[in-house]
Amino acid sequence: MRLADLQTPCLVLDRAVLTRNIARMNARAKELGVTLRPHMKTAKSAEVARRVHGGKAGPITVSTLAEAEYFAKHGFTDIVYAVGISPDKLDRAAKLMAGGVDLKILTDEVGVAQAIAERGKALGVKFRTLIEIETGGERAGVLPASVELDAIGKILDDAGMLAGVLAHAGHSYGADGISEIQEIAEDERAGVVAAAERLRAQGRKADIVSVGSTPTALYGKHLAGVTEMRPGNFVFFDLFQTGIGSCEIGDVAVGVLTTITSHRIARKQILLDAGALALSKDTGANRHMDAGFGLLRPATGELPDKPLAILDVHQEHGIASYARGLDQVDPFPYADYPVGGRLVVLPNHVCMTAAMYDRYHVVDGSDEIIDVWDRVNGW
Amino acid sequence: MRLADLQTPCLVLDRAVLTRNIARMNARAKELGVTLRPHMKTAKSAEVARRVHGGKAGPITVSTLAEAEYFAKHGFTDIVYAVGISPDKLDRAAKLMAGGVDLKILTDEVGVAQAIAERGKALGVKFRTLIEIETGGERAGVLPASVELDAIGKILDDAGMLAGVLAHAGHSYGADGISEIQEIAEDERAGVVAAAERLRAQGRKADIVSVGSTPTALYGKHLAGVTEMRPGNFVFFDLFQTGIGSCEIGDVAVGVLTTITSHRIARKQILLDAGALALSKDTGANRHMDAGFGLLRPATGELPDKPLAILDVHQEHGIASYARGLDQVDPFPYADYPVGGRLVVLPNHVCMTAAMYDRYHVVDGSDEIIDVWDRVNGW
Repeated sequence: MRLADLQTPCLVLDRAVLTRNIARMNARAKELGVTLRPHMKTAKSAEVARRVHGGKAGPITVSTLAEAEYFAKHGFTDIVYAVGISPDKLDRAAKLMAGGVDLKILTDEVGVAQAIAERGKALGVKFRTLIEIETGGERAGVLPASVELDAIGKILDDAGMLAGVLAHAGHSYGADGISEIQEIAEDERAGVVAAAERLRAQGRKADIVSVGSTPTALYGKHLAGVTEMRPGNFVFFDLFQTGIGSCEIGDVAVGVLTTITSHRIARKQILLDAGALALSKDTGANRHMDAGFGLLRPATGELPDKPLAILDVHQEHGIASYARGLDQVDPFPYADYPVGGRLVVLPNHVCMTAAMYDRYHVVDGSDEIIDVWDRVNGW
Repeated sequence: MRLADLQTPCLVLDRAVLTRNIARMNARAKELGVTLRPHMKTAKSAEVARRVHGGKAGPITVSTLAEAEYFAKHGFTDIVYAVGISPDKLDRAAKLMAGGVDLKILTDEVGVAQAIAERGKALGVKFRTLIEIETGGERAGVLPASVELDAIGKILDDAGMLAGVLAHAGHSYGADGISEIQEIAEDERAGVVAAAERLRAQGRKADIVSVGSTPTALYGKHLAGVTEMRPGNFVFFDLFQTGIGSCEIGDVAVGVLTTITSHRIARKQILLDAGALALSKDTGANRHMDAGFGLLRPATGELPDKPLAILDVHQEHGIASYARGLDQVDPFPYADYPVGGRLVVLPNHVCMTAAMYDRYHVVDGSDEIIDVWDRVNGW
């Protein structure tokens, strides 16, 4: 089976690039002296998760209970569900634990902590619960020195359900350059460690001290006091991560294979069968480069010096032309882009793009499909 | 089973609203004297398609071959695949035809027309092919009076594979007000009819003359010369269609059920378990209203006068507060939005949002789940 045999649009994953990305992050975790607990919200694939851990079903992070259930089925037992849980999901979490999963759940809310303690007691389950700490991202979490932290810590500790603290420096995605990422990484580390120490000073245990995000994992200077990190995007990378400096464009491991359906000669464009559903409407990378809805490279090979970009999308149509303006190449070299020809779209934000597919077609530098790996979607 | 028993996020579909929306469009088609061939790219559901046709498997439009295969399996045999086909998909199309489907395919490209004729001959299949006509949308299609139309017409007609012409006035989505929609609808009608007449003047048959888009279907003044229309969004509607005047907000039939996971009191926000994947990153409705990533209504009931909106999304987090500014209500009435409570997000663009789910939970004005309908995704 070769790339030419696939129906498009579909996902293509380069195993050699994936392997290199994983090796880089494992080296970082070793250097920083923490456990690597990859966030599987990006790949959502047991094959990818096992590769992070040298073939074993090691510790992972998930963003949905559907992921937790999928990975449990594939033998993973050490799982952090790193999104604040709602009370109605506790019975599903308990079922996973009854099946042998050491599941850690998360909250930043006194009312939910009470519900966890009460439902755990009713079910006879000791939910292992992390408290989410805000370290600047303004998404979720209690502040490291706050009465909310103390209150949640007391409720969970009294119930024997306090497992530790967790922070996500999601605002590292908004950083301009590596020195700003380093500052955010230190805020994340210092904040979550301060929260753990505050709980300990109150006589409580906080065994797990967890940080995460691909940029801070790559550029943080040290992780003193932290036990684990949870980057996720690093397995694949994308144009956004390229833009903020997490990787080079050659490190992007996943793209969308697409077919040219039409030449729009009067407008110096080509039409592709990868549109809004195939790519997502995420345009985040455009803060850093003229990426449109994705840059185009040949089905095998490197991004050209003067790449095409997807300039507009409809549900099933992508409209592409030169990313940096038509003056780049005039006339448009249609002979290089024949109707029926194949291209790969490098995605703006791979977490959003990959979510539209149920499998990866795995290659290793050539056009041969060496494997097909599934992924889990939904909730 | 009730709304409270569902795991969130998930799709909720109100059957009474759907029924009303369908009746309205059937009345329009009757008034205009054309066949209603609903575009199933929005609902992607056999149950919805059958309801458009009074319980029968009537004529439909699809945006992917995966949809065509799904609907064929559910007994639908009259299908237009209304996205320009790439040559590699012709064998799949032929297989559908061999299974008894009267499939119509589409192109706007001389090279693809040649491939259709050649592959059809090799397979012994008379592909029924429509020529896509551009009537102002600048997406796809050949101009009604163009040498490309003549060339494609000749190739297909010589092969006995010309079925007609098709236009999609997608630019009606950019219209400001109903009179502009009416102008665009007339451009769409006049353009596609002119193309059909040009082909006929060349001695060719153009039996099918097809137009489509929810706004033009609702507001076009007449459809003289047209045989069918292909609106899709109308079954569900959304905030964008509300904004351009296609419907009232009470006509939106589908929403995302979500659970409140946390109170962000310092910022007068609530956190929800519906984020970027649950809603999509489409923000199109904001051209017309302060919709953010979606407006919030109670799990059952109407949109309040001062609704909350999803102001920001992360992959699995939605951050909500007052759509029109915090001065609307200060202090924030947290008692009305308890942790664990349920809300429904009215989507910006339901085609994008529904694509993240594999089923609809059907209600009929109350919180009781009266049915579950599947939908097809992917390619």
